[in-house]
Amino acid sequence: MTQKILVVGGLAAGPSAASKAKRVNPDAEIILFEQGEHVSYGICEVPYYISGAVTNFADLNPLSAGELQRSRGITVKVGHSVEELLPTKKKVVVRNLERDKVLEFAYDKLILALGSITRSIEIEGRDAKNLFRVKSLADGASIRGFIDEKKPKRCVIVGGGYVGMEMCEALVAKGISVTLLHLDDYPMTGLEQETRKAVLSELVRNGVKFHARQKIKRFVTDVDSNVHSVMTESGTFECDFVILSVGVVPNTAIASQARIQLGRHKGILTDERQLTNTDSIFAAGDCCEVKNLLTGRWFYVPLATYATRQGRVAGENAAGGRSVFKGTIRSIAVKVFDFEVAQVGISSQEAQEAGFDITTAHITSDTKVPYFPGNATIDIVAIADKKSHRILGANIYGGPGSVLRANVLGVGIQQKMTVEEFSQLDLIYSPPFSPLWDPLLILANQLKTKFNKQSFRAS
Amino acid sequence: MTQKILVVGGLAAGPSAASKAKRVNPDAEIILFEQGEHVSYGICEVPYYISGAVTNFADLNPLSAGELQRSRGITVKVGHSVEELLPTKKKVVVRNLERDKVLEFAYDKLILALGSITRSIEIEGRDAKNLFRVKSLADGASIRGFIDEKKPKRCVIVGGGYVGMEMCEALVAKGISVTLLHLDDYPMTGLEQETRKAVLSELVRNGVKFHARQKIKRFVTDVDSNVHSVMTESGTFECDFVILSVGVVPNTAIASQARIQLGRHKGILTDERQLTNTDSIFAAGDCCEVKNLLTGRWFYVPLATYATRQGRVAGENAAGGRSVFKGTIRSIAVKVFDFEVAQVGISSQEAQEAGFDITTAHITSDTKVPYFPGNATIDIVAIADKKSHRILGANIYGGPGSVLRANVLGVGIQQKMTVEEFSQLDLIYSPPFSPLWDPLLILANQLKTKFNKQSFRAS
Repeated sequence: MTQKILVVGGLAAGPSAASKAKRVNPDAEIILFEQGEHVSYGICEVPYYISGAVTNFADLNPLSAGELQRSRGITVKVGHSVEELLPTKKKVVVRNLERDKVLEFAYDKLILALGSITRSIEIEGRDAKNLFRVKSLADGASIRGFIDEKKPKRCVIVGGGYVGMEMCEALVAKGISVTLLHLDDYPMTGLEQETRKAVLSELVRNGVKFHARQKIKRFVTDVDSNVHSVMTESGTFECDFVILSVGVVPNTAIASQARIQLGRHKGILTDERQLTNTDSIFAAGDCCEVKNLLTGRWFYVPLATYATRQGRVAGENAAGGRSVFKGTIRSIAVKVFDFEVAQVGISSQEAQEAGFDITTAHITSDTKVPYFPGNATIDIVAIADKKSHRILGANIYGGPGSVLRANVLGVGIQQKMTVEEFSQLDLIYSPPFSPLWDPLLILANQLKTKFNKQSFRAS
Repeated sequence: MTQKILVVGGLAAGPSAASKAKRVNPDAEIILFEQGEHVSYGICEVPYYISGAVTNFADLNPLSAGELQRSRGITVKVGHSVEELLPTKKKVVVRNLERDKVLEFAYDKLILALGSITRSIEIEGRDAKNLFRVKSLADGASIRGFIDEKKPKRCVIVGGGYVGMEMCEALVAKGISVTLLHLDDYPMTGLEQETRKAVLSELVRNGVKFHARQKIKRFVTDVDSNVHSVMTESGTFECDFVILSVGVVPNTAIASQARIQLGRHKGILTDERQLTNTDSIFAAGDCCEVKNLLTGRWFYVPLATYATRQGRVAGENAAGGRSVFKGTIRSIAVKVFDFEVAQVGISSQEAQEAGFDITTAHITSDTKVPYFPGNATIDIVAIADKKSHRILGANIYGGPGSVLRANVLGVGIQQKMTVEEFSQLDLIYSPPFSPLWDPLLILANQLKTKFNKQSFRAS
């Protein structure tokens, strides 16, 4: 009998899973449900569409539902919301949103790629017309349309994380005055203190008005349900519109109702094959927690790279193949105006929580030969384990070339390299690209010296 | 008694060795001999001084002999040529070039950092006034001076290796018409065929007239001993000056006379401590061959990074410490106009010579999200071992970001990673920096697929 595989979610993990499953078992019948209008689009590129760096909206959505269906042999049902899972009957309950009709679909294997949702904030005025999230292609179109039509002058961005940073840059590029309200002392909570201070300097240098320790009390709206000011516990900030970038959480309500096991971040837990605790149900992407390869703990890092990979693995296994996704160290980057910021591996806080006894080092160096045109400063803040001498994580920030260097460090972290091994690395030296001593070697040598001194003191 | 350490050579390895030795044994008396006028300068930056990218000559030579002496506590003797080694007497014979006086110096430990010399070509006219090598700071000053004074219009560059590439770019930047004569079919002998063809396209695109398979017969000079044309076996090329960039060989004549062991490239062979086969004599830098970590064979890769490291190791060991330099995989890069080219690890030819049964893969991808501003093409040609599935080497070429990505691959090669491990790497995705599937992952997946098919065929 034809194998029937249902996939719930059409952004990143879902299409990956469906496509891979079809390749592994071309005879399978595969149906993908997406509640929105678009599938398989570039959500990470949305801020750059708003800024104008990406000019063509169609570029963000290279594969329409129809094309995905035709080119991959998958049945794609957009405008279909999966409302309930019935694992004991091996069925799902699906609402056709256009016709407002509910149907049941049976499956042999089910792949949940439910994605994430904006962290909910129960604040008055949160449904205002000119309050935007940056969570979908439709959001991107709305924000861009609003800016083009209304020519707003002032924006309040709530939340200084990755998306907040990208939106600061995008809106300043559009000539909009930006006020950034953040819960903590510095933007980019989760990164090291040095990095966060450097990011703040870059924001300020570009005219962003940053306000720390701001807890939102109310979005004050007019009669037309438009926000005109944001009230916090310490002030009122006038604006023409609001961007809400307060982070995301796993979209796991229907999974939870079906008693699929969730972790402490409310993301679905799976084994290495992306199989949940429930028979024949796989999960992939932003609805899942991810195993941290350094701590062995589950963490929540909703990134497109992991979603796509987990999708492939879930798809292959659902279709009868055998593939694994072992976890990640976390490799992430963001451009903050002309400043590059990356994190690879775990933070000092995560390391301590996981029981590591750590040493940190902070070096400032050059991306090229110092007097070479285009040379810029690069900083690396690294966390190393005193016991094993392994580097566990790092923040890298600075001028052009900082982010690509982070991957070099990332590979070493994934390979469990010690600082002594790092210091022996054969890295390229060429004036247009790198100084004689690559910043990573300077870092490794500094950590090596620290460890030597520590063992000297200890003996 | 005070330990006496002599260091022969003042460019990269020599000053590194002397400085490290002094740090390890501050009581040692350390004398460094350099036959030229300058020490510790940036020879790799010379083409960029000629092009004008580096504007300040003094930048190339941050540390004068006097400063090296003062800041490091080393006795520095410039204008001193070491003419003979007397290992049985533990002495060296040194000529003070200014006074033309010969003296003997005794040593407890001797460090040879003799460097390299231009490959000799026994061709008529090779001593012409307007024929330049690019081998020293003085050469750089001469070429720049010649261009500024004589305003030459046409140059013939002989030799299309790394320095030849940099000189093409430098001279075109100065508005000079460049003809490049090369022995082989394509420039950059030693790189893979695909890379060499791509480099040729970039040269041609920038107006360089490349002539393949050119064996020089004669530099035709006028009465003032100025070359006005270069005769080869297949043609005559008129010019206002000539750059000779035909590669370098180890400068080991005095070492050879003293029966210090040389390898097949005529470079000094040392153990991991940089000790030669001769009692108390260490060697470091371009006069040495280097152990290739992938083949276990000696090869000749005269690079400043290895020289500096070997110098440190030789200095530490000479001063009574213990340090090792195990070898390299070779990590090298060059900028050819707006084109970035890097090699990490061994070539397909070297792999085959070393007995590996190899598979190659060639991918063409994007450096960023395809429709993102500044996206460029990147190519990777990689060589993998069929037996172990390890990647042994790669050429990476293309737009901005190609060279920094080469280091990521290089770390993996040094870590003996298999293509399967490469395909699992957690690499950064962020539109301004990288596409969703980093080119390295695309490469690894292609090699993985190739290996799967091969094992399928074999079974």
